[in-house]
Amino acid sequence: MKRRDAIRRGGLLGVLAAGAAPAVHAQQAIRWRLASSFPKSVDTLWGFSETVSKMVDDMSGGRFKISTHSSGELVPPFGVVDAVQNGSVDMTHTAPYYFSGKSVVFALASGIPFGFNARQMDSWMMYGNGRKLMSDFFSDYNMVYLDGGHTGTQMGGWYRKEINTLADLKGLKMRMGGGLVGEIMGRMGVVAQNIPPADIYPALEKGTIDAVEWIGPHDDQKLGLQKVAPFYYYPGWWEGDAHGAVFVNAKQYASLPSEFKAMLTAACAFASKNTLAQYDGKNPVALKQLVAGGAKVKGFSNQILDQAFKTTMEVYAELQAKDPVWAKIYGDMRAYQRDLMVWARFSELRYDQYLSTKKI
Amino acid sequence: MKRRDAIRRGGLLGVLAAGAAPAVHAQQAIRWRLASSFPKSVDTLWGFSETVSKMVDDMSGGRFKISTHSSGELVPPFGVVDAVQNGSVDMTHTAPYYFSGKSVVFALASGIPFGFNARQMDSWMMYGNGRKLMSDFFSDYNMVYLDGGHTGTQMGGWYRKEINTLADLKGLKMRMGGGLVGEIMGRMGVVAQNIPPADIYPALEKGTIDAVEWIGPHDDQKLGLQKVAPFYYYPGWWEGDAHGAVFVNAKQYASLPSEFKAMLTAACAFASKNTLAQYDGKNPVALKQLVAGGAKVKGFSNQILDQAFKTTMEVYAELQAKDPVWAKIYGDMRAYQRDLMVWARFSELRYDQYLSTKKI
Repeated sequence: MKRRDAIRRGGLLGVLAAGAAPAVHAQQAIRWRLASSFPKSVDTLWGFSETVSKMVDDMSGGRFKISTHSSGELVPPFGVVDAVQNGSVDMTHTAPYYFSGKSVVFALASGIPFGFNARQMDSWMMYGNGRKLMSDFFSDYNMVYLDGGHTGTQMGGWYRKEINTLADLKGLKMRMGGGLVGEIMGRMGVVAQNIPPADIYPALEKGTIDAVEWIGPHDDQKLGLQKVAPFYYYPGWWEGDAHGAVFVNAKQYASLPSEFKAMLTAACAFASKNTLAQYDGKNPVALKQLVAGGAKVKGFSNQILDQAFKTTMEVYAELQAKDPVWAKIYGDMRAYQRDLMVWARFSELRYDQYLSTKKI
Repeated sequence: MKRRDAIRRGGLLGVLAAGAAPAVHAQQAIRWRLASSFPKSVDTLWGFSETVSKMVDDMSGGRFKISTHSSGELVPPFGVVDAVQNGSVDMTHTAPYYFSGKSVVFALASGIPFGFNARQMDSWMMYGNGRKLMSDFFSDYNMVYLDGGHTGTQMGGWYRKEINTLADLKGLKMRMGGGLVGEIMGRMGVVAQNIPPADIYPALEKGTIDAVEWIGPHDDQKLGLQKVAPFYYYPGWWEGDAHGAVFVNAKQYASLPSEFKAMLTAACAFASKNTLAQYDGKNPVALKQLVAGGAKVKGFSNQILDQAFKTTMEVYAELQAKDPVWAKIYGDMRAYQRDLMVWARFSELRYDQYLSTKKI
């Protein structure tokens, strides 16, 4: 601070003396703190924050420094939005659907059951109305919204017993994340539980719970669940993608030089691509190891998927009727997705389907 | 402006006066020239260069300026690699497979028939060995290699008559882009033609050619081909993705301050996401308009796809036997893709397939 003042004061004297014309940038770096919702053990999602920090540091030549703090280090994982809102940290990397308790609209930036895949989400955000609609919504929370990367489609969880019919779901005690899936699963007879990651394994082993959904092979593998709940179902119909978010305190963001604003945007885009690229690279390796270690990979039956779809659509219809903000943003999102899915049938989906039948 | 100039001029004297140690940056902006292979009419691909230029300008506060030049403005579209190599321009945005004549290995950075989709390509590049292998290869051409965006899966072209069987391909005069597809199609009986975009419509109208492949609905629509060749086939099995590249003259790149190198990487990542997001948003709209305007959308028969796949694999086997660089990079790419495709069956592909059967 003192040094900066000195430069500023020197500037005026310099004007009087005139002479050379080099650009002088303040030596003093801007120092920000980022609180992540993710522990370091969830290395790919935690890595997003580290990548953003490094890119911004590199691009600014050390003039913009973001220190990264894992889940719980500064604030609890679900306290990050409050912390950004009140300015006790400058920014966070998190999953918006964790905050569905504040408003279910948060989930629309994460992805919702039977919602976007990763590529569709990017298109809605960057070319469709997604970025603007969600940014307007988050501005009410005193936050600027930036891209937070993708997991891609997740798995449908670990089960102690096979789940073949709807009857198998009745009374099933299942640990699951936040967002809408708890409500939907509840209507299908599942008893949703909220258990911290460290307690999942013993709870499954003892039979306190019957099933758990976490992320995908790479992250799930670290919990060792195949030993106690070997049936590993796909697809995670409630997470066709989980899209992360970077939230920045609005006042702090406004105070940034425009160069640093642009750097944040670009660094988040780079880290976003990198996160999905890493998940796609790590998940197949882990899946093979899990299967070798006893995991039994099974697809959800059409009976279960169809009921899940039907129930999900009922929940959305109710939300549309009672929450005008949801109705507006969800409506825009679905209209966009309908178009993308028509196009996918003639492009990516057909191409991938065909190639998946071939030995390459 | 006046105040800023005053501070800048005063800087050095101010330092002496106050004893502080500000970083001094050269006032003079670095000015580079980018020659694109794309005309402005191919707005999404041309836009990639403009996005990179703008991001770098914004991030550097105007200290790094890249002027963008469309196809032919400084150098012809296929002259851009030579121009970067010899330093007559600093960088290009192009499609590597245009340069398969120099070495077929160029095509591995673009995507090859029955190769990666966009997301798989990103994963190989960012997490697998792709970036390193291709960068090593391009370094022999005196070029640094950066991300150049994606089109996603393209369409399979416009045909004057229906193409149902292999017999329908015999003697078919078809305009197509560069790369391996010409060789593969040739073995299937097609007579490949190389015609500049402006001549495509009259050639089809007169019957000088029978078919043409270009990009996808958004770009194809501008040529108005549905009026003279209404059968629009999918999928473009030779372009599951077309991945662009940014090539930078190696000496010029080495001369950049490390901040600007990082900015280039991040700007290319941002522009890459943006390009695919735009194609995904624009293609469905154009497809609907094309169908309304008389285009008849048809899927290639399995007979044709199977023969194309078989012929493609034969061509790859021959290349592996005779080109050790191809063999090394292709081998790495395919091993990586095999893993990604196993994982896709339990995640994205299954999710997308299921959702495509539902009314959302």
